[in-house]
Amino acid sequence: MKPVPNDVVERQLAWRYATKKFDPAKPVAPDDWRTLERSLVLAPSSFGLQPWKFFVVTDGAMKARLRAASWNQSQVVDASHVVVFALKTGLGPADVERWIARIGQVRGTPPAALEGYKKMMVGFLAQPTERFDVDDWAARQLYIALGQFMAAAAMLGVDTCPMEGLDPVAYDEILNLGGSGYRTVVVCVAGHRAADDATASWPKVRYETRDVVAHLG
Amino acid sequence: MKPVPNDVVERQLAWRYATKKFDPAKPVAPDDWRTLERSLVLAPSSFGLQPWKFFVVTDGAMKARLRAASWNQSQVVDASHVVVFALKTGLGPADVERWIARIGQVRGTPPAALEGYKKMMVGFLAQPTERFDVDDWAARQLYIALGQFMAAAAMLGVDTCPMEGLDPVAYDEILNLGGSGYRTVVVCVAGHRAADDATASWPKVRYETRDVVAHLG
Repeated sequence: MKPVPNDVVERQLAWRYATKKFDPAKPVAPDDWRTLERSLVLAPSSFGLQPWKFFVVTDGAMKARLRAASWNQSQVVDASHVVVFALKTGLGPADVERWIARIGQVRGTPPAALEGYKKMMVGFLAQPTERFDVDDWAARQLYIALGQFMAAAAMLGVDTCPMEGLDPVAYDEILNLGGSGYRTVVVCVAGHRAADDATASWPKVRYETRDVVAHLG
Repeated sequence: MKPVPNDVVERQLAWRYATKKFDPAKPVAPDDWRTLERSLVLAPSSFGLQPWKFFVVTDGAMKARLRAASWNQSQVVDASHVVVFALKTGLGPADVERWIARIGQVRGTPPAALEGYKKMMVGFLAQPTERFDVDDWAARQLYIALGQFMAAAAMLGVDTCPMEGLDPVAYDEILNLGGSGYRTVVVCVAGHRAADDATASWPKVRYETRDVVAHLG
């Protein structure tokens, strides 16, 4: 009845760690990569707007250039897949139109029936409050996709390492994103841990449950 | 060998949707809730700093108050568990000290061996660049936890609905977070879909894979 047993979910999330050393001889298997790509495509986002694009790099020469823009971290070249999570900048009415059109295409919903939804989204994205920056908001959505990607990888027994320690401007140059409307936010590499990655056996450190989960009523 | 088969991961991520109507008579089972709580505790974060706290509300009266602060969305009262993802505001040196102490406690690492790591984190959090706001950065980390939470729930066959459509200041008041150092960022409710939630059978809408995933080398 239950799709995945509780102990498997818990065990795999505990098995996951930010892999420090990948085995270059163990790439992500093609069927696993297909599933991980599905996890990106299916990632939830606010209003369903998917304010993102995922750039996947597997080529050694390009990975070497990205490594130089990533504090020289070896994971970028040793992991088989580098995923650059890029946000769509300046999300606005044209993006909402595209989304409404896509909903109509998949569900057959007439545009008139989505008019209120459309206006609500356009209004949200254009809100003038001082605390709201549309790119910051889009960036947050990317971290949902990142979380789902890492959790899905853990279920498959695929190792990952998320990375914020990088130069996003250099990434944008290497990926030739200038003028594309997308810019680099965060990166996650995927592959399989090296047998001699000592950090794999380090006890996982988290705060006590009582310090991060509070039950109120 | 593989912890979870590929087709199960893909099927469950496709099964997941932002549930519009929960069945109040079907709460999340206690063992599933324990697993979901583990998924929150185990969520990855930058440097491992866990700049968060998860407030869980199951009480009907408090859920009713939260509903009023959530555009009156019925999910907040019909789902059995409301999880408020709150960030630790103004993360700084004291938080880094606490984290270093926790690593030492779990792994037995002497503080001196973590001195460089500590200085790096303190420097990162205090970076004066105009683009960096420590609370915005912490907020992004919360979305990793959100993504992992929803993916874990999907594996268990538990329904969720993420919600940004809420008044975070009102939430903070209802949860009595004033002076706690935490503030509401985003919410996710968990439960089981009502048999008559028509949206459950709507085709899932995502952009074409070729429009969101680009292979570069």
